Amino acid sequence: MKLDNIKELLGGEKLLQEVSVKGWIRTFRSNRFIALNDGSTINNIQCVVDFENISEKILKQLNTGAAVSINGTLVESQGKGQNVEIQVKDIAILGESNPEEYPIQPKKHSLEFLREKAHLRVRTSTFSAIMRVRSSLSFAVHQYFNQNGFNYVHTPIITGSDAEGAGEMFRVSTLDIKNPPLTDNKEIDFKEDFFGKETNLTVSGQLEAETYAMGLGKVYTFGPTFRAENSNTSRHLAEFWMIEPEVAFLDLDGNMDLAEDFIKYVIKYALDNCKDDLEFLEQRLLQEEKTKPQAERSEMTLTEKLHFVIDNNFKRVSYTEAIEILKNSKPNKKKKFNYIIEEWGADLQSEHERYLVEKHFKTPVILFDYPADIKAFYMRANEDGKTVRAMDILFPGIGEIVGGAQREERYDVLKEKVEAMGIDEKELWWYLELRKFGTATHSGFGLGFERLVLFATGMTNIRDVIPFPRTPQNAEF
Amino acid sequence: MKLDNIKELLGGEKLLQEVSVKGWIRTFRSNRFIALNDGSTINNIQCVVDFENISEKILKQLNTGAAVSINGTLVESQGKGQNVEIQVKDIAILGESNPEEYPIQPKKHSLEFLREKAHLRVRTSTFSAIMRVRSSLSFAVHQYFNQNGFNYVHTPIITGSDAEGAGEMFRVSTLDIKNPPLTDNKEIDFKEDFFGKETNLTVSGQLEAETYAMGLGKVYTFGPTFRAENSNTSRHLAEFWMIEPEVAFLDLDGNMDLAEDFIKYVIKYALDNCKDDLEFLEQRLLQEEKTKPQAERSEMTLTEKLHFVIDNNFKRVSYTEAIEILKNSKPNKKKKFNYIIEEWGADLQSEHERYLVEKHFKTPVILFDYPADIKAFYMRANEDGKTVRAMDILFPGIGEIVGGAQREERYDVLKEKVEAMGIDEKELWWYLELRKFGTATHSGFGLGFERLVLFATGMTNIRDVIPFPRTPQNAEF
Repeated sequence: MKLDNIKELLGGEKLLQEVSVKGWIRTFRSNRFIALNDGSTINNIQCVVDFENISEKILKQLNTGAAVSINGTLVESQGKGQNVEIQVKDIAILGESNPEEYPIQPKKHSLEFLREKAHLRVRTSTFSAIMRVRSSLSFAVHQYFNQNGFNYVHTPIITGSDAEGAGEMFRVSTLDIKNPPLTDNKEIDFKEDFFGKETNLTVSGQLEAETYAMGLGKVYTFGPTFRAENSNTSRHLAEFWMIEPEVAFLDLDGNMDLAEDFIKYVIKYALDNCKDDLEFLEQRLLQEEKTKPQAERSEMTLTEKLHFVIDNNFKRVSYTEAIEILKNSKPNKKKKFNYIIEEWGADLQSEHERYLVEKHFKTPVILFDYPADIKAFYMRANEDGKTVRAMDILFPGIGEIVGGAQREERYDVLKEKVEAMGIDEKELWWYLELRKFGTATHSGFGLGFERLVLFATGMTNIRDVIPFPRTPQNAEF
Repeated sequence: MKLDNIKELLGGEKLLQEVSVKGWIRTFRSNRFIALNDGSTINNIQCVVDFENISEKILKQLNTGAAVSINGTLVESQGKGQNVEIQVKDIAILGESNPEEYPIQPKKHSLEFLREKAHLRVRTSTFSAIMRVRSSLSFAVHQYFNQNGFNYVHTPIITGSDAEGAGEMFRVSTLDIKNPPLTDNKEIDFKEDFFGKETNLTVSGQLEAETYAMGLGKVYTFGPTFRAENSNTSRHLAEFWMIEPEVAFLDLDGNMDLAEDFIKYVIKYALDNCKDDLEFLEQRLLQEEKTKPQAERSEMTLTEKLHFVIDNNFKRVSYTEAIEILKNSKPNKKKKFNYIIEEWGADLQSEHERYLVEKHFKTPVILFDYPADIKAFYMRANEDGKTVRAMDILFPGIGEIVGGAQREERYDVLKEKVEAMGIDEKELWWYLELRKFGTATHSGFGLGFERLVLFATGMTNIRDVIPFPRTPQNAEF
């Protein structure tokens, strides 16, 4: 008999038919009601067993976490809480779950505890919801770019250059670390390493993506990136997934249009395709907020926050304007900010970004034309001699969610900047050559995927939105 | 004026309208005809310039590889080879391309030469076609799984275990290799490393994907995997992308159904969505084959090979049957095989796999129930005590394209195998626990994405189907 999935059964189309399901028991109560889940939906299906006709042995095995196979009839439910239920005819235990040992019991576990059980936490309602939303957002990313004529490019993970200077890198090597080969000068002889030179894990696929944009026109990457920063915070991971579109013949304004359209599309996709999961996460968040002092509670529910993004036009404000607004703001004058904004050139902190979004504009904000000194070398210099064509998108709750720029397309200007930064030109010869042969205006941005998942699920610790987080001192599983 | 893309213009809908395109010059001939490409399609659009009204300076810059901006009228073409063309009104040079320096000239470059220019090779027809097909196949993968209720899981890239034993691994570390910290016993002190232990780049996401299948039911991975093998062949990469679905409550037969359905879907998707690119690649292959001796030429064109896969039922044959067929085959008896099949238990080579597919069955083949000794520890043992529920899918030309198995779901049996293999149980405690709590039959398979792209594009060297190949002594770009 073909297996039914619980999501479809709860839709009710098979009413009064024989059905066959396999799944894991979430709860078993009154020796009669099994709440069964198979991962297809956050909702369990109620399976009603006639305990008088079931062996004592099986009854004893109907524990939380056990895998079972059930055949029965889908009927309208008499009880509250569900429209349909299964009248069980046969039940078989596929895999037991000893309640003395199984760590995921039907009670509230702390998120910290569940991180230690990352191989089992997806069996909880919270994590199954998060991970289904994560999967849906991933698909929405691919679908958006596919529908808009972009090509997906797999940029390399192992890289020979630390050119972007975006942060500390992990070394990738096959050298015997106990006894590495040395040169005549007693330096490590990386010529003997697998790739014949020192290699690291990539911090960004952007530079390679640019080479493809300058041939295919519109491309994007979606892959893992790495930072070896010793940051044990709720916002940092050593390994995370990044989305980086790159488009030829696009200027900064077009880049802002693209980013706004893209984010709205993927958030709307989640709202349309993850209703049950988002509803559950919204309730979860409301419960959690109740335990907080009033002042720390969010002003918006999860759904309101998502609609805040898709229903508003993102306000476009230059960095210079933003500094003026912040300088004259109450929290700045009353010294409520941790970092007081005193003059043009200051790097904005999350508190400033959130003030602009949540208090001042009450809409997502795109800041543009940042001081060159606080941005990367590859960003297009403006004619004013001090700003670059960078843009950041700021969201409520989390601050910066997107960072992008129009790229410096002029060979001489870029070469000068590379030199000024002390970057070895030999590492970037290929990147410079893009400006030598058929160069053109082009732009792109980066979006840290876990930031997006945090925002969409209302979770607050980034370790809870990726299956197996990698952080300092932690690479379990 | 909004930019038009060449793919849409060649569709002809804007006939007699003003159009605006930006792209790169592929060729410029007779001081009059520009073949312009913007990456949206393999086909160039012909732009006709009136050289008498263009400055000498611009004329001199209309070289292969230069980026230009063109406004004009889309008209029916008088010449052969295209239906429409652009009568140019304005033309501007965005980025020059000095013909003395630009390496990608309109002539046949060797694939080897182009590998050295991996940042520019996507500007050729061949590589733009390959990379668009690669992108389409990627999207088809996501679309197939999305439509069939799978969740995409990002399994970790950095891993603390070498449990699968699938091959040599790359070490990931932030230790100072010149002066690593030592323990009292003069061993490297990996407690001081970033993750507090020795870590490597993953060889497969399967084991972690299994943990998610046992909660979400149906999942898949699609991410980079790594092998530090010193193999300089046309079939090996140190960094490649792998697709690994994993499904709870699925047995080996169901796994074969899934794999066959999946592959047919993605190949058909490419045939439906990459017509122009595949046609170009087919012609390219025909030209290349002409240079080979008759005996080495492929019996099928590229399109025929793709239809061979989607139009045939994959023949399912047990390993034991296959050995009998091979033992009694002509090439075996006449000792034409490099590896003569003498007895049950032999590991099959590509020559044997191709014989079964191309000569004996004349259809894609799924071999199943392999000897336990030549397969991985996690595969489900059959009752015969000597085979496991493994399956490989064999394709014409390339041999194995998929390897999969039903997984060993019995705790005791798996624990015994882990011990027998000498694997440290502490590394796999979480994997074993899946068999302790709610275990059930489950299955999955792995497909090396570059193998699929090789097959679909008719290319023969794996370095030509990934943007920036990573191989021994090569991590350029």
